[in-house]
Amino acid sequence: MVAMSDAFSEAERRGVYRAIFERRDVRSHFVAAPVADAVLGRILNAAHHAPSVGFMQPWDFIVIRDVTLRQAVRDNFARANREAGRIYSGERLALYDDLKLEGIVQAPVNVCVTCDRSRGRGHGLGRQSSPETDLYSTVCAIENLWLAARAEGLGVGWVSILDYQELKTLLRIPESVTVVAYLCVGYVSEFGAQPDLEQRGWEGREDLAKLVHFEEWGSRDEERVAELLGPVLR
Amino acid sequence: MVAMSDAFSEAERRGVYRAIFERRDVRSHFVAAPVADAVLGRILNAAHHAPSVGFMQPWDFIVIRDVTLRQAVRDNFARANREAGRIYSGERLALYDDLKLEGIVQAPVNVCVTCDRSRGRGHGLGRQSSPETDLYSTVCAIENLWLAARAEGLGVGWVSILDYQELKTLLRIPESVTVVAYLCVGYVSEFGAQPDLEQRGWEGREDLAKLVHFEEWGSRDEERVAELLGPVLR
Repeated sequence: MVAMSDAFSEAERRGVYRAIFERRDVRSHFVAAPVADAVLGRILNAAHHAPSVGFMQPWDFIVIRDVTLRQAVRDNFARANREAGRIYSGERLALYDDLKLEGIVQAPVNVCVTCDRSRGRGHGLGRQSSPETDLYSTVCAIENLWLAARAEGLGVGWVSILDYQELKTLLRIPESVTVVAYLCVGYVSEFGAQPDLEQRGWEGREDLAKLVHFEEWGSRDEERVAELLGPVLR
Repeated sequence: MVAMSDAFSEAERRGVYRAIFERRDVRSHFVAAPVADAVLGRILNAAHHAPSVGFMQPWDFIVIRDVTLRQAVRDNFARANREAGRIYSGERLALYDDLKLEGIVQAPVNVCVTCDRSRGRGHGLGRQSSPETDLYSTVCAIENLWLAARAEGLGVGWVSILDYQELKTLLRIPESVTVVAYLCVGYVSEFGAQPDLEQRGWEGREDLAKLVHFEEWGSRDEERVAELLGPVLR
């Protein structure tokens, strides 16, 4: 078993679970307070310590503070969002139109996270049977950044509704590099008790017990699931 | 600014960074000690609280303890690994053959994490311009599980070298569902000071300063990067 010096204290362990449970995808609650470089540096370093396939570290981070540039990204979002709204109608459309889905200009910092799929680092280890693992590694970096940000009191919102080709042109990102996420980062007036989309009635939280299978897909076991999840879902 | 009751204590914040910096992709150091159901339940619940596009929650978790089944997965790995080794030669091949890349049978529990790409939850929000965000959501769940596991003293290894079609047949996973990760979970004899692949000389850690751009791709700024990363890289 692992040396006791490696064990987490009760408060350290609580911190990890707090970050996980209290992390929010922030769009509405950004405040103008500036984010110090040292804090931004810490959350980027957290991202950089994500797992990566073959230790490839395929990520890059574009830090965007320029307001004119962020306004252009918000315009890009607005066009993509109008397009995306077309699949809804009736009450669902009214709800969609009423959702706030980005905080690009309200948040003082944006971070575009990319994946250089042709980066030689890692020597291709792990990517032959699963070429998309470089993208997955980049997502692990994003989740690290997100959780570290929560521990720093910073909110993060991942804006996925964008015209990515246009975004790449705007940020001069090479054709061969993939944009994985466009993040808005800033202090917040509050972290909601629930995800915004749950609170607004867009979608509810699924029952975890329904998502756990034993030994093979579709194999349920009420007793085993109660033992696994009884304490956490109580 | 956020209410003080929402702020993390120093120890809670340290816990988050410890989990991020001391997390390892474990293959060699699993021990046989059993993982209690309640602990496994906590890390699955951590996964379930990941961000997801449109609050889609597209993940499922197959918990595998059966040894015969895990031996079959290890055989699957062995075949895929022989195939994957063919791209290397000389010293790189010798190093590759010497790496331990899975702990499928040594770890007492395996967890296969999938993404149901046709799940209706979330009503398609955010997926029209970026359809792969459901896969990315699932990866966020995996990183949550990984970090919570570290806080619990559990190691996790992500085995990506597999024949996924065969794995789906073995675990009776429907054609329409995508396997995102096959994880080995268990207590460990140690968490290495460095990633295994770094320690074995397969690949080194990139300098984060080279991966940070300002306002647009390729725009470097020695002074700004020093302000951002000076404290963390010192």
